[in-house]
Amino acid sequence: MAKLLVLYNQPADPAAFDRHYAETHIPIARKIPGVRSYTINTAPPIVAAGTVSPYLIAELQFDTMAALQSAMASPEGQAAAADLPNFAQAGVSLLVYETRDA
Amino acid sequence: MAKLLVLYNQPADPAAFDRHYAETHIPIARKIPGVRSYTINTAPPIVAAGTVSPYLIAELQFDTMAALQSAMASPEGQAAAADLPNFAQAGVSLLVYETRDA
Repeated sequence: MAKLLVLYNQPADPAAFDRHYAETHIPIARKIPGVRSYTINTAPPIVAAGTVSPYLIAELQFDTMAALQSAMASPEGQAAAADLPNFAQAGVSLLVYETRDA
Repeated sequence: MAKLLVLYNQPADPAAFDRHYAETHIPIARKIPGVRSYTINTAPPIVAAGTVSPYLIAELQFDTMAALQSAMASPEGQAAAADLPNFAQAGVSLLVYETRDA
Protein backbone atom coordinates (compact mmCIF):
# COMPACT_ATOMS: atom_id res chain seq x y z
CA MET A 1 0.00 0.00 0.00
CA ALA A 2 0.98 3.63 -0.46
CA LYS A 3 -0.14 6.26 1.95
CA LEU A 4 -0.67 10.01 2.05
CA LEU A 5 -0.56 11.19 5.65
CA VAL A 6 -1.79 14.74 6.22
CA LEU A 7 -0.99 16.36 9.57
CA TYR A 8 -2.82 19.62 10.17
CA ASN A 9 -1.44 22.03 12.77
CA GLN A 10 -3.69 23.40 15.50
CA PRO A 11 -5.97 25.97 13.85
CA ALA A 12 -6.59 29.42 15.32
CA ASP A 13 -10.32 28.87 14.94
CA PRO A 14 -11.11 25.15 15.36
CA ALA A 15 -14.83 25.58 14.68
CA ALA A 16 -14.16 27.31 11.35
CA PHE A 17 -11.56 24.66 10.47
CA ASP A 18 -13.94 21.82 11.31
CA ARG A 19 -16.72 23.38 9.28
CA HIS A 20 -14.58 23.92 6.19
CA TYR A 21 -13.03 20.46 6.48
CA ALA A 22 -16.37 18.68 6.80
CA GLU A 23 -18.43 20.73 4.37
CA THR A 24 -15.89 21.59 1.68
CA HIS A 25 -12.63 19.65 1.90
CA ILE A 26 -13.98 16.11 2.43
CA PRO A 27 -16.32 16.37 -0.57
CA ILE A 28 -13.40 17.57 -2.72
CA ALA A 29 -10.97 14.94 -1.40
CA ARG A 30 -13.50 12.14 -1.83
CA LYS A 31 -13.37 12.69 -5.58
CA ILE A 32 -9.65 11.83 -5.77
CA PRO A 33 -9.32 8.68 -7.92
CA GLY A 34 -7.81 5.45 -6.58
CA VAL A 35 -8.36 6.14 -2.88
CA ARG A 36 -8.80 2.79 -1.05
CA SER A 37 -9.46 4.32 2.34
CA TYR A 38 -9.71 7.84 3.74
CA THR A 39 -9.78 8.08 7.50
CA ILE A 40 -9.56 10.93 9.98
CA ASN A 41 -9.32 11.12 13.76
CA THR A 42 -12.55 11.56 15.65
CA ALA A 43 -11.04 13.87 18.29
CA PRO A 44 -7.70 15.66 18.64
CA PRO A 45 -4.93 13.07 19.12
CA ILE A 46 -3.49 12.42 22.55
CA VAL A 47 0.22 13.20 22.45
CA ALA A 48 1.72 10.40 24.56
CA ALA A 49 5.28 11.56 23.87
CA GLY A 50 7.22 13.92 21.63
CA THR A 51 6.71 17.27 20.00
CA VAL A 52 4.46 16.54 17.02
CA SER A 53 0.96 17.59 18.03
CA PRO A 54 -1.38 17.78 15.05
CA TYR A 55 -5.01 18.82 15.33
CA LEU A 56 -6.22 16.59 12.52
CA ILE A 57 -4.65 13.53 10.93
CA ALA A 58 -6.01 12.38 7.57
CA GLU A 59 -4.84 9.17 5.93
CA LEU A 60 -5.49 8.30 2.32
CA GLN A 61 -4.45 4.85 1.16
CA PHE A 62 -3.77 3.77 -2.40
CA ASP A 63 -2.84 0.39 -3.89
CA THR A 64 0.56 1.54 -5.14
CA MET A 65 2.84 4.56 -5.13
CA ALA A 66 2.12 4.96 -8.87
CA ALA A 67 -1.61 5.17 -8.13
CA LEU A 68 -0.96 7.73 -5.39
CA GLN A 69 1.21 9.89 -7.64
CA SER A 70 -1.30 9.68 -10.47
CA ALA A 71 -4.09 10.64 -8.06
CA MET A 72 -2.23 13.65 -6.73
CA ALA A 73 -1.50 14.83 -10.28
CA SER A 74 -5.14 14.43 -11.35
CA PRO A 75 -7.51 17.43 -11.50
CA GLU A 76 -9.25 16.08 -8.39
CA GLY A 77 -5.96 15.77 -6.50
CA GLN A 78 -4.93 19.24 -7.58
CA ALA A 79 -8.30 20.60 -6.46
CA ALA A 80 -7.81 19.07 -3.00
CA ALA A 81 -4.32 20.57 -2.75
CA ALA A 82 -5.62 23.94 -3.95
CA ASP A 83 -8.21 23.93 -1.15
CA LEU A 84 -5.59 23.63 1.63
CA PRO A 85 -4.82 27.38 1.85
CA ASN A 86 -8.54 28.00 2.40
CA PHE A 87 -8.55 26.40 5.85
CA ALA A 88 -5.05 25.15 6.80
CA GLN A 89 -3.42 28.54 7.36
CA ALA A 90 -1.84 27.23 10.57
CA GLY A 91 0.22 24.81 8.52
CA VAL A 92 -0.01 21.29 7.21
CA SER A 93 2.51 18.52 6.58
CA LEU A 94 2.01 16.01 3.77
CA LEU A 95 3.95 12.76 3.97
CA VAL A 96 3.99 10.19 1.18
CA TYR A 97 5.32 6.66 1.68
CA GLU A 98 4.83 3.00 0.98
CA THR A 99 3.98 0.69 3.84
CA ARG A 100 4.50 -2.95 4.70
CA ASP A 101 3.56 -5.13 7.62
CA ALA A 102 6.22 -4.97 10.32
CA MET B 1 -10.53 1.71 15.14
CA ALA B 2 -7.95 3.21 17.50
CA LYS B 3 -4.48 3.97 16.34
CA LEU B 4 -1.02 4.47 17.80
CA LEU B 5 1.08 6.50 15.36
CA VAL B 6 4.80 6.56 16.12
CA LEU B 7 6.91 9.16 14.33
CA TYR B 8 10.66 8.66 14.73
CA ASN B 9 12.96 11.60 14.09
CA GLN B 10 15.92 11.26 11.73
CA PRO B 11 18.54 9.17 13.57
CA ALA B 12 22.20 10.16 13.72
CA ASP B 13 23.13 6.64 12.60
CA PRO B 14 20.39 5.26 10.33
CA ALA B 15 22.07 1.87 9.92
CA ALA B 16 22.23 1.34 13.68
CA PHE B 17 18.64 2.52 14.03
CA ASP B 18 17.44 0.18 11.28
CA ARG B 19 19.28 -2.75 12.81
CA HIS B 20 17.87 -2.20 16.29
CA TYR B 21 14.38 -1.57 14.96
CA ALA B 22 14.32 -4.72 12.83
CA GLU B 23 16.15 -7.08 15.14
CA THR B 24 15.00 -5.92 18.57
CA HIS B 25 12.08 -3.51 18.53
CA ILE B 26 9.77 -5.26 16.06
CA PRO B 27 10.01 -8.59 17.93
CA ILE B 28 9.16 -6.77 21.20
CA ALA B 29 6.33 -4.72 19.66
CA ARG B 30 4.84 -7.77 17.94
CA LYS B 31 4.06 -9.22 21.36
CA ILE B 32 1.75 -6.34 22.30
CA PRO B 33 -1.76 -7.79 22.75
CA GLY B 34 -4.71 -6.69 20.64
CA VAL B 35 -2.75 -5.30 17.70
CA ARG B 36 -4.86 -5.65 14.53
CA SER B 37 -2.21 -4.30 12.19
CA TYR B 38 1.34 -3.02 12.53
CA THR B 39 2.77 -1.31 9.49
CA ILE B 40 5.90 0.71 8.79
CA ASN B 41 7.14 2.68 5.81
CA THR B 42 9.45 0.85 3.42
CA ALA B 43 11.62 3.91 2.74
CA PRO B 44 11.91 7.38 4.30
CA PRO B 45 8.71 9.35 3.61
CA ILE B 46 8.64 11.98 0.90
CA VAL B 47 7.76 15.31 2.53
CA ALA B 48 5.41 16.87 -0.04
CA ALA B 49 4.74 19.89 2.19
CA GLY B 50 5.25 21.09 5.74
CA THR B 51 7.82 20.73 8.44
CA VAL B 52 7.18 17.27 9.90
CA SER B 53 9.83 14.99 8.44
CA PRO B 54 10.02 11.68 10.28
CA TYR B 55 12.48 8.94 9.38
CA LEU B 56 10.19 6.09 10.31
CA ILE B 57 6.42 5.97 10.74
CA ALA B 58 4.93 2.98 12.58
CA GLU B 59 1.19 2.47 12.86
CA LEU B 60 -0.43 0.06 15.26
CA GLN B 61 -4.18 -0.41 14.98
CA PHE B 62 -6.52 -1.71 17.68
CA ASP B 63 -10.24 -2.40 17.67
CA THR B 64 -11.04 0.21 20.30
CA MET B 65 -9.39 2.90 22.39
CA ALA B 66 -9.92 0.68 25.45
CA ALA B 67 -7.99 -2.14 23.76
CA LEU B 68 -5.19 0.28 22.85
CA GLN B 69 -4.94 1.64 26.39
CA SER B 70 -4.99 -1.86 27.86
CA ALA B 71 -2.26 -2.91 25.40
CA MET B 72 -0.03 0.03 26.25
CA ALA B 73 -0.44 -0.68 29.97
CA SER B 74 0.38 -4.39 29.55
CA PRO B 75 3.87 -5.76 30.30
CA GLU B 76 4.41 -6.16 26.55
CA GLY B 77 3.38 -2.56 25.84
CA GLN B 78 5.59 -1.34 28.67
CA ALA B 79 8.49 -3.38 27.29
CA ALA B 80 8.07 -1.75 23.87
CA ALA B 81 8.01 1.72 25.44
CA ALA B 82 11.05 0.87 27.56
CA ASP B 83 12.98 -0.09 24.41
CA LEU B 84 12.53 3.35 22.79
CA PRO B 85 15.49 5.02 24.55
CA ASN B 86 17.71 2.23 23.20
CA PHE B 87 17.44 3.42 19.60
CA ALA B 88 15.25 6.54 19.34
CA GLN B 89 17.65 9.01 20.93
CA ALA B 90 16.89 11.51 18.16
CA GLY B 91 13.33 11.75 19.43
CA VAL B 92 10.00 10.12 18.84
CA SER B 93 6.40 11.32 18.91
CA LEU B 94 3.56 9.00 19.93
CA LEU B 95 0.06 9.97 18.90
CA VAL B 96 -3.05 8.12 20.05
CA TYR B 97 -6.45 8.63 18.45
CA GLU B 98 -9.61 7.00 17.21
CA THR B 99 -10.35 7.03 13.51
CA ARG B 100 -13.41 6.96 11.30
CA ASP B 101 -13.97 6.98 7.58
CA ALA B 102 -14.08 10.52 6.25
